[in-house]
Amino acid sequence: MSNKWVYLFGEVAQAEQAMGSWDGVRGLLGGKGANLADMMRAGLPVPPGFTVTTRGCMAYINSGFNLPEGMWEQVLTALAQVEKEANKKFGDPSNPLLVSVRSGAKFSMPGMMDTILNVGLNDKVAPGMIALTGNERFVWDSYRRLLAMFGHTAMGIDDEAFDHVMNALKAELNVTLDTELKAENLKELVKRFKQVYVQELGREFPQDPLEQLQIAVRAVFDSWMGKRAIDYRRVEHIPDDLGTAVNVVTMVFGNMGDDSGTGVAFTRDPATGQRVIYGDYLLNAQGEDVVAGIRNTKKVADLGDDMPAIAEQLQAIGKKLELHYKDMQDTEFTIEKGKLWMLQTRNGKRTARATVKIAVDMVAEGLITKEQAVMRVTPKDVDFFLHPQFDEKAVKAAKLAGRLLAEGVNASPGAAVGKLAFDANTAEAWGKAGEAVIMIRAETKPDDVHGMVASKGILTSRGGATAHAAVVARQFGIPAVVGAAALHIDQDLREVTVAGRTLKEGDIVSLDGATGQVYEGTLPKVDPDFKKEVELATLLGWADEISANAGARQWEAGLQGFPTRGLQVWTNADYPKDARRAREYGAKGIGLCRTEHMFFEQERLPHVQDMILNAEEAQKLLNVVSRYERILETGKEEGQAIKEARRDEIEAELEKARTDVVESPAVKVYRSSLDFLLPYQRSDFYGLFEAMDGLPVIIRLIDPPLHEFLPTLETLLVEVTDLEADLDLPRTGTGKQLLGETLSAKRKMLTAVERMHESNPMMGLRGIRLGIIFPDIMKMQVRAIFEAACDAAAAGYAVHPEVMIPLTGHVNELKLTQAELEKVARQVMTEKGREISYKFGTMMEIPRACVTADAVAGLAEFFSFGTNDLTQMTFGYSRDDAERRFLVEYVEQGILPVNPFQTLDAEGVGALLRMGVRKGRAARNELEVGICGEHGGDPESVEFCYLAGLNYVSCSPFRVPVARLAAAQSAIKHRGKLLD
Amino acid sequence: MSNKWVYLFGEVAQAEQAMGSWDGVRGLLGGKGANLADMMRAGLPVPPGFTVTTRGCMAYINSGFNLPEGMWEQVLTALAQVEKEANKKFGDPSNPLLVSVRSGAKFSMPGMMDTILNVGLNDKVAPGMIALTGNERFVWDSYRRLLAMFGHTAMGIDDEAFDHVMNALKAELNVTLDTELKAENLKELVKRFKQVYVQELGREFPQDPLEQLQIAVRAVFDSWMGKRAIDYRRVEHIPDDLGTAVNVVTMVFGNMGDDSGTGVAFTRDPATGQRVIYGDYLLNAQGEDVVAGIRNTKKVADLGDDMPAIAEQLQAIGKKLELHYKDMQDTEFTIEKGKLWMLQTRNGKRTARATVKIAVDMVAEGLITKEQAVMRVTPKDVDFFLHPQFDEKAVKAAKLAGRLLAEGVNASPGAAVGKLAFDANTAEAWGKAGEAVIMIRAETKPDDVHGMVASKGILTSRGGATAHAAVVARQFGIPAVVGAAALHIDQDLREVTVAGRTLKEGDIVSLDGATGQVYEGTLPKVDPDFKKEVELATLLGWADEISANAGARQWEAGLQGFPTRGLQVWTNADYPKDARRAREYGAKGIGLCRTEHMFFEQERLPHVQDMILNAEEAQKLLNVVSRYERILETGKEEGQAIKEARRDEIEAELEKARTDVVESPAVKVYRSSLDFLLPYQRSDFYGLFEAMDGLPVIIRLIDPPLHEFLPTLETLLVEVTDLEADLDLPRTGTGKQLLGETLSAKRKMLTAVERMHESNPMMGLRGIRLGIIFPDIMKMQVRAIFEAACDAAAAGYAVHPEVMIPLTGHVNELKLTQAELEKVARQVMTEKGREISYKFGTMMEIPRACVTADAVAGLAEFFSFGTNDLTQMTFGYSRDDAERRFLVEYVEQGILPVNPFQTLDAEGVGALLRMGVRKGRAARNELEVGICGEHGGDPESVEFCYLAGLNYVSCSPFRVPVARLAAAQSAIKHRGKLLD
Repeated sequence: MSNKWVYLFGEVAQAEQAMGSWDGVRGLLGGKGANLADMMRAGLPVPPGFTVTTRGCMAYINSGFNLPEGMWEQVLTALAQVEKEANKKFGDPSNPLLVSVRSGAKFSMPGMMDTILNVGLNDKVAPGMIALTGNERFVWDSYRRLLAMFGHTAMGIDDEAFDHVMNALKAELNVTLDTELKAENLKELVKRFKQVYVQELGREFPQDPLEQLQIAVRAVFDSWMGKRAIDYRRVEHIPDDLGTAVNVVTMVFGNMGDDSGTGVAFTRDPATGQRVIYGDYLLNAQGEDVVAGIRNTKKVADLGDDMPAIAEQLQAIGKKLELHYKDMQDTEFTIEKGKLWMLQTRNGKRTARATVKIAVDMVAEGLITKEQAVMRVTPKDVDFFLHPQFDEKAVKAAKLAGRLLAEGVNASPGAAVGKLAFDANTAEAWGKAGEAVIMIRAETKPDDVHGMVASKGILTSRGGATAHAAVVARQFGIPAVVGAAALHIDQDLREVTVAGRTLKEGDIVSLDGATGQVYEGTLPKVDPDFKKEVELATLLGWADEISANAGARQWEAGLQGFPTRGLQVWTNADYPKDARRAREYGAKGIGLCRTEHMFFEQERLPHVQDMILNAEEAQKLLNVVSRYERILETGKEEGQAIKEARRDEIEAELEKARTDVVESPAVKVYRSSLDFLLPYQRSDFYGLFEAMDGLPVIIRLIDPPLHEFLPTLETLLVEVTDLEADLDLPRTGTGKQLLGETLSAKRKMLTAVERMHESNPMMGLRGIRLGIIFPDIMKMQVRAIFEAACDAAAAGYAVHPEVMIPLTGHVNELKLTQAELEKVARQVMTEKGREISYKFGTMMEIPRACVTADAVAGLAEFFSFGTNDLTQMTFGYSRDDAERRFLVEYVEQGILPVNPFQTLDAEGVGALLRMGVRKGRAARNELEVGICGEHGGDPESVEFCYLAGLNYVSCSPFRVPVARLAAAQSAIKHRGKLLD
Repeated sequence: MSNKWVYLFGEVAQAEQAMGSWDGVRGLLGGKGANLADMMRAGLPVPPGFTVTTRGCMAYINSGFNLPEGMWEQVLTALAQVEKEANKKFGDPSNPLLVSVRSGAKFSMPGMMDTILNVGLNDKVAPGMIALTGNERFVWDSYRRLLAMFGHTAMGIDDEAFDHVMNALKAELNVTLDTELKAENLKELVKRFKQVYVQELGREFPQDPLEQLQIAVRAVFDSWMGKRAIDYRRVEHIPDDLGTAVNVVTMVFGNMGDDSGTGVAFTRDPATGQRVIYGDYLLNAQGEDVVAGIRNTKKVADLGDDMPAIAEQLQAIGKKLELHYKDMQDTEFTIEKGKLWMLQTRNGKRTARATVKIAVDMVAEGLITKEQAVMRVTPKDVDFFLHPQFDEKAVKAAKLAGRLLAEGVNASPGAAVGKLAFDANTAEAWGKAGEAVIMIRAETKPDDVHGMVASKGILTSRGGATAHAAVVARQFGIPAVVGAAALHIDQDLREVTVAGRTLKEGDIVSLDGATGQVYEGTLPKVDPDFKKEVELATLLGWADEISANAGARQWEAGLQGFPTRGLQVWTNADYPKDARRAREYGAKGIGLCRTEHMFFEQERLPHVQDMILNAEEAQKLLNVVSRYERILETGKEEGQAIKEARRDEIEAELEKARTDVVESPAVKVYRSSLDFLLPYQRSDFYGLFEAMDGLPVIIRLIDPPLHEFLPTLETLLVEVTDLEADLDLPRTGTGKQLLGETLSAKRKMLTAVERMHESNPMMGLRGIRLGIIFPDIMKMQVRAIFEAACDAAAAGYAVHPEVMIPLTGHVNELKLTQAELEKVARQVMTEKGREISYKFGTMMEIPRACVTADAVAGLAEFFSFGTNDLTQMTFGYSRDDAERRFLVEYVEQGILPVNPFQTLDAEGVGALLRMGVRKGRAARNELEVGICGEHGGDPESVEFCYLAGLNYVSCSPFRVPVARLAAAQSAIKHRGKLLD
């Protein structure tokens, strides 16, 4: 590695040659240094200066905080050159050069790094400067600023020490504002600040300008390892080994009279994205004053009133900078005695709205391409448009007023205000009555869903970002704060105690799912309307175009199995209203409709429970009939042709089995429950086909273990034990009898639940296993799907049902189930006299299915990777338990880089997924492959899916726009890369 | 495919040429036909005949039970040739040829297929034969036999129809034995039997000999599809598409006078393996009579007394056959008028004991090689030597006496007799008092283990072959019958009702873990002694030799990573007595010592519970101290060097954290519990090192979720609810107070259990996850291991501890844990002043670990595939639930070929395992790889492990001999095959 540690601004070409790219230059000199040098090269007025490199910083840190060999000599040489260019001399009282020493990392880390101005001032230089400028106050003011900044930043003296002295002096003088201090007061302050050094450090302020400079450079380097900087990097995923550069720049002064000034200018409005110069300035002031807000600033747009020529020059520079950097710039400038100096330019921070508008505008202006525009918008920006937000000022005010109740995990973004409801039924009742409800629970369960979907927001005291509450909330786009541990919920009293206050059911709270904060009372909201966001629609349209083109390109390049239409975005939607919303958000299909949510609805649940309680007995009888029928139909038993005699036997046995079926009360209840549910399911599906007219709809057959639809074992145990104790009490007549009847019913339910109890229900009797043990449930569902599809087709809709069988682990499971279900499908189509184009496929969520995907693809026409469960099985993590018990600690300790339920684990789970895709496509080239886990809405995971050559990602409606962006960004990022 | 359907015995060379191998000939002609032809080729006296091929059979079945084209013509041609050789004519009354028509499949299926003798007899031939032989009785007897056999076997007439006629005749004649029937009686019987045809079928017995022959041939073919044959094939894993051949052989008659006779001869004693001719014969009798036991047979060894020349000839033929077939032969012979005819030879069935002895003897005799001897013994044979058996006669008698109570899953072989105990504590108490106990439970749990190990047998009414009871039973070699659903256990009354009887606690039952049967009362046992089994020891010694040589050969052939010592057999042993036994059985190391079983012992459990109840609070404080200490020690925080100021801060915080630790009551209890457990664990391990002197000992650190050591949530819920109700009753003083205290303690425990409750404990906080969250538990264990190792080394034992960390899913988990634990190990060795050779490694049971095995092997020095859990995760099956809920049905329906918890699923789980081995060895060539799941003792799985290039399989002590055999058999079977 080169040991050139210092680059003059004029040496930018040399840096570029050394690094090979502009990005490399930014890495070496930091964003600020690189841009200053770059501006100088572009002929813009930049004060002379130089940069000590980021490599220098890392060499310094890695050698145990020592300046590497040769660095200081190079600083001195560069300083000499700056003296020459500035025509001033560092430490020369007769013509002093002062410099600023500022950090500048590759990525902007505002407020994180430290700056020292006026380095080079000392007791000798100060009088010289006074003589030179005739502005005594300015010089002493500069000196006292140096002393304070240097003392705090470079020498580690507590800020308060200087504040204390300053305040004491103000008190003596009976003044309140800094500006009221006169030159002699500031001179006195300089004297006292110097005493602070002696008191705090036992040493004098270093008078030697070179010593000042060296300490300042070290201080900047040290600040890279400061706690705030480390924390910031952690949050923003900035690597620790980048280091910061140090920029040493000739000081220019905006406070040298009314022909001087200083300001901050954005080339466009960073709030709205409007193409107008934007910012503030002050005449006769130094940079800090603009930010500090001590004096009322003026708008840069009005600079022409004060200095028309400078204003024009600034406008021109802004245009030039935008043309050069192809982005909106955030600049700092100073006017020193009528001369404009540019002190900094960088890509300006902006709101999500401005980001989108500027990107789209710049394409129209010919500044950037559509692809560049797409790359410039982040998923977070897009997300902003999808959730109502609290008014920022109101949030600040609420905090000041002490209305912040608690903070939890920001599980599902969005702002919600409503009345607290302590259970799902209350939430549903109030919600249906048109009230805004915040459902509050310790944690939620599947049978809370009807209350959750009726709520405006969800608040829990337990669980993490992938707890049930969080998952469902994201799925339905309901704002949620989960795991707010400070909440003490008393379910009996129906109240929650937090931060010393007690809120009752019905009290109003405001909840911000983006920040995880919960406030007492109502906060006003700003509610964005997706349809009105024309610029965003334009941008996402480009994103889709880019994705599709990338697919076509890859396909033309002969990449086997790559989807011609590129990576599409589909949606997970269980209800027509979700489907409609997702379509509005740009979804190209439904990748997952979960049919079991439909089972939980209040009027259906009793029938579902009847079905379950009789399923085992009934299905056993029904399965006997099916088996005999199958044998007679195929003429084969266990793969072998049967003889006539055996046929007679079987016919007799079939007859008997049919009689058993007819006589069985269990079968009666089982069938009537299924018959009851059929029309409900049919109408559910009809609604989806209607909403998704012309697009594919993947419907997943029942997945969860049946006992999830029954009360829990724990509840029943307590209820039965309670009832038993009650019955022991002396009691008479009807009361006793009623109690006895209740007990008997509960005991019956308890017996069923005990029989169905599973140690690890996640790995239990669910998905396709249900399809094999209780085939009639899935058959009912398939009948409902195809009846709905035929009806919808008859009504003129273009329907594309795809039936998804969950949890396949072995191809033989699919063999049996798919054949039986397809038979039902064909039968319905015959009955309805209609041919529907359909697919049968499976969810890939069992590791074994991935490992044997070639066999599975022999039958399945599509794969949908259920990456939630696949992650559970591959890691051996139970999602319900892992976050609560160890996963948070795993991420904190860096054992896992991220929570694998949020971002797909490419190394492990991803390797299985890729194996599945590869093997699956090898067996069936046109295999449709997607994912429908929560990862489908996570940008990093979307990128993985692009690389794995998937046809689509499916995510909750509210993540669709984000996923569209992420898909396009992946296509751009990896253009031309070969995929396996 | 050739359409030569018929081979004369003399055409065996032609058949051999067509098929390319002797095995092919056996496949084509069936075992019986091939051997008859082969004997004829060897010059032995075989009656002329021919064989209709198995291919003919399949062609017949597949064409819907029609004779394929050309077959019948070929039969007629062959028959003509036989007539020529026998110098008789089929259907010619003056010189009639009779034939037997017998089935003969490739694999012997005794009793499964049907035989018809005397085909060719009819109303015309019978008088001719009488004239020819002068033996009227013999002819009518032959004819009536033909009628009955033909009628039943070929025409489907019920046996009873003939029996009925026969009995009626006997009644008329007032005789009881067949032999009492005179010639004229038999003639009458022939008449009446012929009437049966008319009555039952409405047709006459076919008089045309050719028609008889064709019907008989078809009948044999049909019998291949008979229910008994299909069932037998299912059990014995014989493919359905092999078919059976039909042998048509000239009849010879042993009942033509005192110079005639018939018999069955084994070339060695099939019960003991002794090298003596063995069998029975009768003079002047037909084959059936020997088997039927109507007359007292004579021993073939004494044949010399009657017919010295024939006896000598038979001896000589026996030797010749053994020399030819290299195996003990089971022959049938007939002497017709002083001439010996061999009617059949086949490898003789024999007992396990005889199998081993004959194999070993034949090596000594130079008949076969050691490898052939090893291949000849089955795992089942070896298993016989390891478990006590019930006396067979006693079993029969008990069945007749109606003492069979129930049948369940034969979960762990062996015979056990004892008193029923209804819970673990009773079982333990009685067991320790020296009583033989059969523990009976609905199902068992980990905290039943202390009772199980004290029992002679285990009996449950629920669960399958891999239920907890079954797994533990096999592990400890305790006979077990599980899932005997007919048992109705009343835990409160402490009695079990079954088959109309009620047994009380203390009543005696006999249980056969090999058959799954349970008997009332005591059955006498035969108890084998492994040490005395010299022949078995010799054979297994050869097996080890073969395995080791195979390893060396593969290794010399340059097969990367193949273990030089071949596939060894290690053992799963938790206690020294198990280790000693396993060593006696030939184990070459301990592959799995489960340390948590030690925690369940009665005197330790309270301390374990104390440890658990305080772990969370205590470890949180202790972890803070560790973290600061680590930072100070390494001088780094989160990978970055720390500055002096930060060091001071951390020192201060460390000081505070240490104070917190000292002051915490939780830490006090936590530490004192760990201190209490340390010496116990140390002495556990010392015993293992002592027993395994010189061999490796892999000790797995604590694996199960901690809540397994606490009462269940369900129990506590009921107890607390009960106590609450009790407290509500009017009560006074001390009683109430005591009740209150109990309730309070239970509530505390309930709170802890609720907090630790997991939805899916299998995938919860266990294994290495515990090591990260509660590091001090594993540290205590590692300290105990190394203290014990150093002490054992000091006492002169050669110790090779290998520390196994369970459940790694991500290499970073191992990184953290292994480093911390190795530090403890080194510290102990320093304290003890001793260097021990050791390894650190991990269990591979999480799919992700297999997928990322290269990274894991960067740290782990050995892999031990925990195929139980790996199977659970790969299939997504919870073992506790799957068998009960759907796995049995899966296997029954053929969705899975076998239960994957019994035989490793090579296609899915095995693919992950192989991936793990390949990637692991690529990263670390000398990586030691084994499996320690239950599959280690399953022969088919052992073969898989051989092919995967593993260093060892580890299984329960009682499976070690079987695994040694299976390993050698794999090496022989796959010799020279390349492994990946």
